[in-house]
Amino acid sequence: MENFEFHLPTRYIFGQGSVKRTAEVVKEYGYKKVMIVYGSNYAKRSGLLDEITAQFKNLNLEYTLLGGVKPNPRADLVYAGIKQGIDEGIDFLLAVGGGSVIDTAKAIAIGIKDQEHDFFDFYLRVRKPLDALKVGCVLTIPAAGSESSISSVIEKVVDGKNMKCGLGTPLFRPLFAIMDPTLTYTLPAYETACGITDMMAHIMERYFTNSKGVDVTDEMCEGLLRAIIENAATVLRDPSDYNARANIMWAGALAHNNLLGVDREQDWATHHLEHQLSALYDVAHGAGLAVMFPAWMEYVYSHDVMRFAKFAHRIFNIPLDFEDPSHTAQQGISALRAFFASIHMPLSFADIDAHEDDIPKMLSMLGVDDKEHAEGKFMVLYRSDCEKIYMNAVNYGKKIKTGAVRCLTL
Amino acid sequence: MENFEFHLPTRYIFGQGSVKRTAEVVKEYGYKKVMIVYGSNYAKRSGLLDEITAQFKNLNLEYTLLGGVKPNPRADLVYAGIKQGIDEGIDFLLAVGGGSVIDTAKAIAIGIKDQEHDFFDFYLRVRKPLDALKVGCVLTIPAAGSESSISSVIEKVVDGKNMKCGLGTPLFRPLFAIMDPTLTYTLPAYETACGITDMMAHIMERYFTNSKGVDVTDEMCEGLLRAIIENAATVLRDPSDYNARANIMWAGALAHNNLLGVDREQDWATHHLEHQLSALYDVAHGAGLAVMFPAWMEYVYSHDVMRFAKFAHRIFNIPLDFEDPSHTAQQGISALRAFFASIHMPLSFADIDAHEDDIPKMLSMLGVDDKEHAEGKFMVLYRSDCEKIYMNAVNYGKKIKTGAVRCLTL
Repeated sequence: MENFEFHLPTRYIFGQGSVKRTAEVVKEYGYKKVMIVYGSNYAKRSGLLDEITAQFKNLNLEYTLLGGVKPNPRADLVYAGIKQGIDEGIDFLLAVGGGSVIDTAKAIAIGIKDQEHDFFDFYLRVRKPLDALKVGCVLTIPAAGSESSISSVIEKVVDGKNMKCGLGTPLFRPLFAIMDPTLTYTLPAYETACGITDMMAHIMERYFTNSKGVDVTDEMCEGLLRAIIENAATVLRDPSDYNARANIMWAGALAHNNLLGVDREQDWATHHLEHQLSALYDVAHGAGLAVMFPAWMEYVYSHDVMRFAKFAHRIFNIPLDFEDPSHTAQQGISALRAFFASIHMPLSFADIDAHEDDIPKMLSMLGVDDKEHAEGKFMVLYRSDCEKIYMNAVNYGKKIKTGAVRCLTL
Repeated sequence: MENFEFHLPTRYIFGQGSVKRTAEVVKEYGYKKVMIVYGSNYAKRSGLLDEITAQFKNLNLEYTLLGGVKPNPRADLVYAGIKQGIDEGIDFLLAVGGGSVIDTAKAIAIGIKDQEHDFFDFYLRVRKPLDALKVGCVLTIPAAGSESSISSVIEKVVDGKNMKCGLGTPLFRPLFAIMDPTLTYTLPAYETACGITDMMAHIMERYFTNSKGVDVTDEMCEGLLRAIIENAATVLRDPSDYNARANIMWAGALAHNNLLGVDREQDWATHHLEHQLSALYDVAHGAGLAVMFPAWMEYVYSHDVMRFAKFAHRIFNIPLDFEDPSHTAQQGISALRAFFASIHMPLSFADIDAHEDDIPKMLSMLGVDDKEHAEGKFMVLYRSDCEKIYMNAVNYGKKIKTGAVRCLTL
């Protein structure tokens, strides 16, 4: 087990009706002028935004609105938000939405506190952020875990290349997260499935580690993955099943607040491999992860066959093949693909209209080479390794097309 | 799943060598005069206290010492600590020890902030605490979970009766918890086992619930119980196994910071039944819990056979008897007793020199009657129920003596 510090100051306010307390909670902290950040669709259409602004008016809390955040959120809106926030003298940000909205609010929160520099420098790791406004969230899409994580991911075109960059800093832990599972009843099946894939990926990026003697956290990772898989079937069958929606929502926060990663070396190669897909094709991050995670697993499982056999056995109840544990490990990867297929996630480049010819561009955006710049910790991956992983995702599509593989049924 | 708020501001500083940072961490927060609270044995004998006071001197941090905390900590020392703290103008408490030391520091922390009233009024629930000094911990015994919990338990003789009372308030969450597993290498086997039993009880008090649809937390409870059981065998065989000590220590904090209880109605009858045993006989809390938990389970399992069958199956890998799940449930209780026996915990009144004749006294101290005052939530327990549970613990000893039961081997 590795040494660690773990500090999770985010206050979770969870359950049916909790959204009714939004303005009251903001007021508790004494903020004077709040920027409410929201997305392009749900918050407005559903009446949620109106409900929250009505609460603000009732409590005489000042606010300003910033709407229009899109999936894979862009730097443009962050710059506009920083300017608007400074002009209007805001002292707090309330994000009403999913990961993209929360990530945008976080970016504005550090941008406002350092007006001398370009906020994207922090994302490019040119400079470290020293201060930020506080952000609170009303979560509407369980997926990114941004409601209590230290991360934010923003896209920007730099030198003609669309860069998708992530930044992690304790300054980004939201002050509170209001999580009302009933808000997710109307989330479409595809977005629900993308969110489920994303939270599973957050756990798996931590689960596949070279750190030894990490039983407590392994058990929690495995338990959450099983609970997510079990409840995924329920929410897709019955989108208004409260307990299933609640379990998925809570799992999404736990998957990425780093409770499940404190004691170990984490990987994150798959996330970075995927970011290039969503930067290039604007595919949903979760969908891209469903393509890339099994492709990564196929390439790296032989690095620690027993950990992958444990994954197969503990998550999918596949009996251990004591004579050939690598067989069990492979079955686990197939079972994960079968699960993704069962929730209608894509599995290959072909499924998301991604092109083999673009792989060199992705590798260049990823910034890997064959000497110094690599990805991943579980197994260190240079350019040629990453290329082979992308090719696994290409080839899996070809295999399906020719009938060389068939999906397992779960 | 129940609605909840969860706020865990305690900062965990975990791992080998973390104790070297103690004074530096206190200084970070800017405190000026610290009361270092410690126990009667380990902290002084091991040199830990000297190491920490040397750090304070190096950083020119003022401190005052309060030693002599005993297991099942008494109000007398709390009163002395409050007086000393006020006289010396302390602004922070550092607890160096296990649950008793931390609980004492917490009691002093609220006592100092309300000098008009008797601190024990808060424990008797006559009055609610409104403010407290901050407490930090250097944990030496993984057991009570007090290093990040909202609880403190103190004993006091009131009207000739030895009252053992617990108080829970968010004011009691420590500011930080320094957790160095190497400090527990020298913890005797008996104390290690008592701690393991205590943390398992903290999980089980939460696990046995009437709340439905709580898969995520159930999975985490089950995973932690399995990890504790697995690592218990290792630490008792090899007390200096770092990873096993670290897993046990981390599990102890997670077991009682309420992560595992947020979404559900919790029970806590067994803890209260046990408190009367340790108040009357000064038996270690963990040892008393090993006696009382299976006795409670025997009495209540028929209230929800399938939950107890799940416990048996998921924790002890006992195959489900589909024709008679109550058989599986009973096997789970036997397996838990067998585990406690394997770590040399007592299982009956006889094992801890407790007397059947004292049961009326315990029931009176417990404050239950047959009409209004009951214990427990999973199953509400009136006086006659509690009496039968104590009698289960008496009778189990008789059954062992006559050979009517034999322990399973794990």
